[in-house]
Amino acid sequence: MPRRGIPKQSADELVRQLLELLPDESVLFGEEDQHPYECDGLSAYRQMPRVTVLPENVEQVQAVMRLCHRMQVPVVARGAGTGLSGGALPNPDGVLLSLAKLHNILDIDPIGRIARVQPGVRNLAISEAAVPFGLYYAPDPSSQIACTIGGNVAENSGGVHCLKYGLTVHNILKIKLVTPEGELLCVGSEALDSAGFDLAALMTGSEGMLGVFVEASVRLLPRPECVRLLLAAFDDVEKAGAAVGDIIAAGIIPGGLEMMDRMSINAAEDFVHAGYPRDAAAILLCELDGMRQEVDEQAEQAADILHRAGATEVRITRDEAERTLLWKGRKSAFPAVGRLAPDYYCMDGTIPRRHLPKVLRRIGELSKEFGLPVANVFHAGDGNLHPLILYDANISDELARAETFGGKILELCVEVGGSITGEHGVGMEKIDQMCVQFESAELSQFHAIKHAFDPDALLNPGKAVPTLHRCAEFGAMHVHAGQLPFPELERF
Amino acid sequence: MPRRGIPKQSADELVRQLLELLPDESVLFGEEDQHPYECDGLSAYRQMPRVTVLPENVEQVQAVMRLCHRMQVPVVARGAGTGLSGGALPNPDGVLLSLAKLHNILDIDPIGRIARVQPGVRNLAISEAAVPFGLYYAPDPSSQIACTIGGNVAENSGGVHCLKYGLTVHNILKIKLVTPEGELLCVGSEALDSAGFDLAALMTGSEGMLGVFVEASVRLLPRPECVRLLLAAFDDVEKAGAAVGDIIAAGIIPGGLEMMDRMSINAAEDFVHAGYPRDAAAILLCELDGMRQEVDEQAEQAADILHRAGATEVRITRDEAERTLLWKGRKSAFPAVGRLAPDYYCMDGTIPRRHLPKVLRRIGELSKEFGLPVANVFHAGDGNLHPLILYDANISDELARAETFGGKILELCVEVGGSITGEHGVGMEKIDQMCVQFESAELSQFHAIKHAFDPDALLNPGKAVPTLHRCAEFGAMHVHAGQLPFPELERF
Repeated sequence: MPRRGIPKQSADELVRQLLELLPDESVLFGEEDQHPYECDGLSAYRQMPRVTVLPENVEQVQAVMRLCHRMQVPVVARGAGTGLSGGALPNPDGVLLSLAKLHNILDIDPIGRIARVQPGVRNLAISEAAVPFGLYYAPDPSSQIACTIGGNVAENSGGVHCLKYGLTVHNILKIKLVTPEGELLCVGSEALDSAGFDLAALMTGSEGMLGVFVEASVRLLPRPECVRLLLAAFDDVEKAGAAVGDIIAAGIIPGGLEMMDRMSINAAEDFVHAGYPRDAAAILLCELDGMRQEVDEQAEQAADILHRAGATEVRITRDEAERTLLWKGRKSAFPAVGRLAPDYYCMDGTIPRRHLPKVLRRIGELSKEFGLPVANVFHAGDGNLHPLILYDANISDELARAETFGGKILELCVEVGGSITGEHGVGMEKIDQMCVQFESAELSQFHAIKHAFDPDALLNPGKAVPTLHRCAEFGAMHVHAGQLPFPELERF
Repeated sequence: MPRRGIPKQSADELVRQLLELLPDESVLFGEEDQHPYECDGLSAYRQMPRVTVLPENVEQVQAVMRLCHRMQVPVVARGAGTGLSGGALPNPDGVLLSLAKLHNILDIDPIGRIARVQPGVRNLAISEAAVPFGLYYAPDPSSQIACTIGGNVAENSGGVHCLKYGLTVHNILKIKLVTPEGELLCVGSEALDSAGFDLAALMTGSEGMLGVFVEASVRLLPRPECVRLLLAAFDDVEKAGAAVGDIIAAGIIPGGLEMMDRMSINAAEDFVHAGYPRDAAAILLCELDGMRQEVDEQAEQAADILHRAGATEVRITRDEAERTLLWKGRKSAFPAVGRLAPDYYCMDGTIPRRHLPKVLRRIGELSKEFGLPVANVFHAGDGNLHPLILYDANISDELARAETFGGKILELCVEVGGSITGEHGVGMEKIDQMCVQFESAELSQFHAIKHAFDPDALLNPGKAVPTLHRCAEFGAMHVHAGQLPFPELERF
């Protein structure tokens, strides 16, 4: 990559020292070069880093960390930048550390069912490399074609199949990481158990606050012999919510179990023509995987349960084309709903699934109280809600009403024992809501953990864990034409 | 419980203050009263605590912790005392805090598939309470009839079925704990995901070093419709080891996959007459569970694989009586082997399963080199080894040879990427071997974590994580007539 006319002698001391550690093309400090790194998937937050580095090996990562530690410069690690909570937003005074060049699959062990990979390996690439062994890597965030395993570990990514196969934390065995001091740590074990505190689990979901991941050993699973998708239509949202519990209570563990309400169904139909029943109040998409006989048997059982739960129609897909089309509607639901109103306010919380009917009913009541429509499209089996509140910021007080409404939904999640986060991490986006979720005792403990790994607070400062000082109120995410009217990045 | 003649006025200040916080019968300070608490399942380590308390509710636990914090008195938490690594060994200057009176199942949620229980609830009692819902709690340490969930969480307990269903850490959702300062913390979430650092996973396996657990929400699973056990005989240990990998590589995930070598087989046969083939060099016990059709299909497939791997005989159980008898031999293998020699030296380590044949061969070679017989009986699917080195401490240098031999086996586990721990925790027993497993960078990080939760080092001091100072050499466990010739508890 050319330096684009910025002479070395004009760079500051940090850049000069980085250029001594790394090849020239691995140190970016001009505005144009760094443009691709100024935001992640939450594109409304933008911040140019002081300098961007792309080390080519672990030793270079260590050298960068040692330098930054010596100079007390903040470091933000970055995978593919597909995160949705602003976790990889650069720090204006710091180094943006891209792991993109550490992109090798180091080893696949079919007997241990383990892949050992560098952090910049794409999620889907692991499964592709495991095809010859009949194996795959289960967690499948919707960005899996682009997102990298380093980012997945940092955010504890989920996906449609985490109901059955768990989150990233359940599929990670061992992690190598570089500390803020530049030391290499190896936590967890490829063997079943690991001695000492479970630092591999602690690392997973730590959002770049505790170390820079440079290698991960992940668990692989046998590919299922057979996959079928069921679509069930309901004339009532609560009935659909209750049916989710019925399926689980019957001992079935679907690969995925998704729900869409009427507004989402019709928005998706208008957008991609998936063949959904437009007159349904809600649909469930229930995917079953396993051995053929088992799947066929469970599909019949699930269809029975859905009928008994009041489904007006149940379809079982018989081929891949049918299955792909039904998923297409679900996967395009967000942009489809986005066409219905000038603005929408996207909430993301998780509740224990037994409370689905109650919470859905309450959201419906709140929708009437606040006079704002809501579209529900979400991972029902996981209790991971994504209510989309539609509003128009140009109409006086609608934004304020949407905000209060969204706040009520989050409070409801916490009230029933749920979580203010779904699968996107906290990052910048939800840092205020951490104050709703946790008491000061838990927050203080988070800070103690942070201090135990990063006493100088150099790693991804200002993300994921709010200061107690900040916890006076909570904010939430408002979307207007893809832009978020958020305050500037606050350093703390 | 009567006070047995020790007047309150003779008790020290700590005891007097505890008696103000708790009912009289919940504070034990006489030698006779405290006798049951002086050791856990590793009975060769014995130590009388200064005082034993049995609080009846969370508030009393908090009050005890606040008092101990104020007086800077060490606290050792204890469940049922069935642990095998001395993790619950009392501290002579401290309080032994039994959670036995917190033994209520608080809630079972069949839709969320979650049981919320107090720490003193027995492992098996959870599954028993879940029977009406067709559910059970999967981790099944062999002590499951007696051991409690608090201890299971502290030790990250395993069991025969952790190959398929994971360790305790994979089955715990939320933990309430009391800090050394007496504060109540709630970590994890009954919802799928939890915001902030994954402190619930960090707590699991922390061996009483980070907090006192007062409540756990555990995941329940649907009971399998059908269970079958296969027995496969081999004329060669390495072939049996390779067959383990073949089964896994074929995409089968057995509920359990156990291995016994000739010496174990014959010792078990002499002891309980399980019907094992006495002339086999090794047997595998492979349990399959799931839906009936699936299990039948997989049993046939596994039998084929075992035959192709060189099995001289494969049996598939058809009823519970047959299955129970075959398991009885496995479960009595340790005491059975114990009858073959005056002393045995029990190792417990885990290796990646692909290295099973190599490690088994190397153990056989070492057995010849050292002139000491070894019996192997272990969780083969998990790569969790339990070599039992037979020796006679009355014969000059046999103890020293057994010790060196055992050390070689542990080094071998670490060398192939395994772990010095299996499923029993580190406790007192393996604290020296932690120095083999970890570099000082990792050990320092463990200390930083400990400091983040327990800066005064009051919780279970001297267990699980060695000081760097201690890491000059490692020891191991020698059994002579059930007694361990270990040095006195070292405070550090």
